[in-house]
Amino acid sequence: MSFQDKLQKYAELVARLGVNIQKDQELVIRAPIECAEFARAVAESAYKLGAKEVIVHYKDEKLMRMKYLNAPLEVFESYPDWVGESENYYAKRGAAFVMIAATDPEIFKGVDSAKLAASTKAGHIALKPFNDLRDLNKICWNIVSVPTPAWAKKVFPDCDEQTAVEKLWEAIFKAVRIDQPNPVQAWEDHKRTLFTKSQYLNEKQFASLHFKNSLGTDITVGMPENYIFEGGGDITSDGVYYFPNMPTEEVFSMPHKDKVNGTVVSSMPLNYQGTLISEFSLTFKDGVVVDYSAKEGYEALKRLLDTDEGAKMLGEVALVPYKSPISDMGILFYNTLFDENASCHFALGSAYPSCIKDGVGLSKEDLKKRGGNDSITHVDFMFGTSDMKIVATEKDGNEVTIFENGNWAI
Amino acid sequence: MSFQDKLQKYAELVARLGVNIQKDQELVIRAPIECAEFARAVAESAYKLGAKEVIVHYKDEKLMRMKYLNAPLEVFESYPDWVGESENYYAKRGAAFVMIAATDPEIFKGVDSAKLAASTKAGHIALKPFNDLRDLNKICWNIVSVPTPAWAKKVFPDCDEQTAVEKLWEAIFKAVRIDQPNPVQAWEDHKRTLFTKSQYLNEKQFASLHFKNSLGTDITVGMPENYIFEGGGDITSDGVYYFPNMPTEEVFSMPHKDKVNGTVVSSMPLNYQGTLISEFSLTFKDGVVVDYSAKEGYEALKRLLDTDEGAKMLGEVALVPYKSPISDMGILFYNTLFDENASCHFALGSAYPSCIKDGVGLSKEDLKKRGGNDSITHVDFMFGTSDMKIVATEKDGNEVTIFENGNWAI
Repeated sequence: MSFQDKLQKYAELVARLGVNIQKDQELVIRAPIECAEFARAVAESAYKLGAKEVIVHYKDEKLMRMKYLNAPLEVFESYPDWVGESENYYAKRGAAFVMIAATDPEIFKGVDSAKLAASTKAGHIALKPFNDLRDLNKICWNIVSVPTPAWAKKVFPDCDEQTAVEKLWEAIFKAVRIDQPNPVQAWEDHKRTLFTKSQYLNEKQFASLHFKNSLGTDITVGMPENYIFEGGGDITSDGVYYFPNMPTEEVFSMPHKDKVNGTVVSSMPLNYQGTLISEFSLTFKDGVVVDYSAKEGYEALKRLLDTDEGAKMLGEVALVPYKSPISDMGILFYNTLFDENASCHFALGSAYPSCIKDGVGLSKEDLKKRGGNDSITHVDFMFGTSDMKIVATEKDGNEVTIFENGNWAI
Repeated sequence: MSFQDKLQKYAELVARLGVNIQKDQELVIRAPIECAEFARAVAESAYKLGAKEVIVHYKDEKLMRMKYLNAPLEVFESYPDWVGESENYYAKRGAAFVMIAATDPEIFKGVDSAKLAASTKAGHIALKPFNDLRDLNKICWNIVSVPTPAWAKKVFPDCDEQTAVEKLWEAIFKAVRIDQPNPVQAWEDHKRTLFTKSQYLNEKQFASLHFKNSLGTDITVGMPENYIFEGGGDITSDGVYYFPNMPTEEVFSMPHKDKVNGTVVSSMPLNYQGTLISEFSLTFKDGVVVDYSAKEGYEALKRLLDTDEGAKMLGEVALVPYKSPISDMGILFYNTLFDENASCHFALGSAYPSCIKDGVGLSKEDLKKRGGNDSITHVDFMFGTSDMKIVATEKDGNEVTIFENGNWAI
């Protein structure tokens, strides 16, 4: 299959399965300018599937860096209405959203933390209508990646730019199953596998999960009553099945925000807003981070934890076997979309309302009462290893080993 | 001088002279995604000159073509508020605007005329606040060009893409005086030359201009009382000098909209909204087009003339010597910004209020009473030739030849 054929198949997969575009629906694509070719291919596929209009919002991270370095703080403290409206308007009309995540992992290195933090908060306020609709399961959204030269060079530093880009394409095509004879069928099969695992966990309704490995992770995560593990895709309130992430290898749920105790040690660097945080650890007491360290990116980690109260607590627990198509490649992607699908991970920040029974539509306060964390941020970080052991405790105290040597034991 | 040095100088020229960026001012750049490198260079220069924030709106003409071919007519009949606001918001705050004009001259070939016409009208409504502020001389704006592969290949069809782009860069650098030792000084000198010509025409206050050449042009353009010829740059109501066009070789004014009689024959193809109109002629009676023809692009010409009532009348008369830096290159650019500066031209559509004494701030109705045309469009077209003769008639009937053999005779 030629590169163009693969690109085409990938674009079609995103339009058809990723956001499951409906006849006469609008589609908004957020794309780095370097990814224009892929954005156009997704647009073309969406039109073929009956989309009414495709709107592409191009981002230029080099200009963003320039703005962070030159514009005063006030520029980042609030956004003009049109910025939020450029997404909220379409969300209210039932549009689907594709986000192409492909950043230079260190694009914002050295940028003033205060500006980055202000921008995160302003963005959250500007996009509140969009985020609220997403929390109500009203929006089909899909995050995918395609290589940019800057990102590819970070993943394959020893290759020249063109080779690095080609190798990253190859890895991505593999991760999203484009190398398989029938990618759409491969995704349907994969969906069923993930469903089996989450169904098991949901039937068991464990009281807690204990994670332990030789890196130093030793942490117990209490689970809320009636938690739901999800995996694969999601269904909107209108009944449209879509895949929020491509690739996706995880089954995930929400921890009880006040019942996390112990220490977790990262197993991969985290690319947080254009800065790498590596070899870091977090210690929790009754759900709250009470101590932390980082070999690299300590300031960025501090900024993340200081975002708001909920940023110091967990909003997601995700189980990913060490043996998975992505981790088998042995590539560190410096991109959460891939790295989180090669490793067990938690997220600091908000919980997904869909991860608890009847959670969608609950107020933030009611969700918190049931153990679901609230925050303006949600950042995944990876801690899975080849020797990860996970012991689940049932409500009667009975213990079940669900992960052994990094892989499913059930 | 290396290519990068030239690019840098060009970007600085645009920020410094083109929009004359002020300390703490905002700058909006409209750029095709292919021109990102230049957009970033202009942004960098603007920040160095003290700009507070640079906002870049990227356009993707390939996506636009895809939308025209796939989306229904209603999508083009009105724009969501955020689209207009993304420009109007900054215009109201006193921002400067750089528009990078670089389109594939035939990008919209074969597109449904009704959609293009609807889009023109919707765009005019969406940007009314911006346009009104521009008419009041409140905005520093500047149109420049940089090559895109598609455009370059049209200009140099016999070259491979890379060579075509390089040759077009070379031609543009020459046209905007970047090849000169001190481009800023060269522009100051050029400004004075154009000022001398317009001053002469303004002192004379001719009653009419008669254009005649061997191509078939034979047309008399009556001038309004107290017309003003402008050339070079313009001054905002706040006293900031800027250059709306780079390059610019013309001196221009407004004709009396009801006093145009005769026939004008085009001397270059016109790129109108992604369609080429070539070898066309227009016949006027008392200011209105009563007959027209075109060898190529007749439908596009018809669409232009049918835009509104004012689109069938003239809003601009511009004098450009046949011997000018741009026409000396002997290149057909298929881009009005360049071609209009190599040839005498008219514009169908709206007149600039600044082209008549005390015109700025006049209502459209009052401007019309004084002879200034009103329309939602303004499209320049070229008719200058090497044998163009222009005879001006003074109010007492005395005749003065101001152009002979295509060049200034005064």
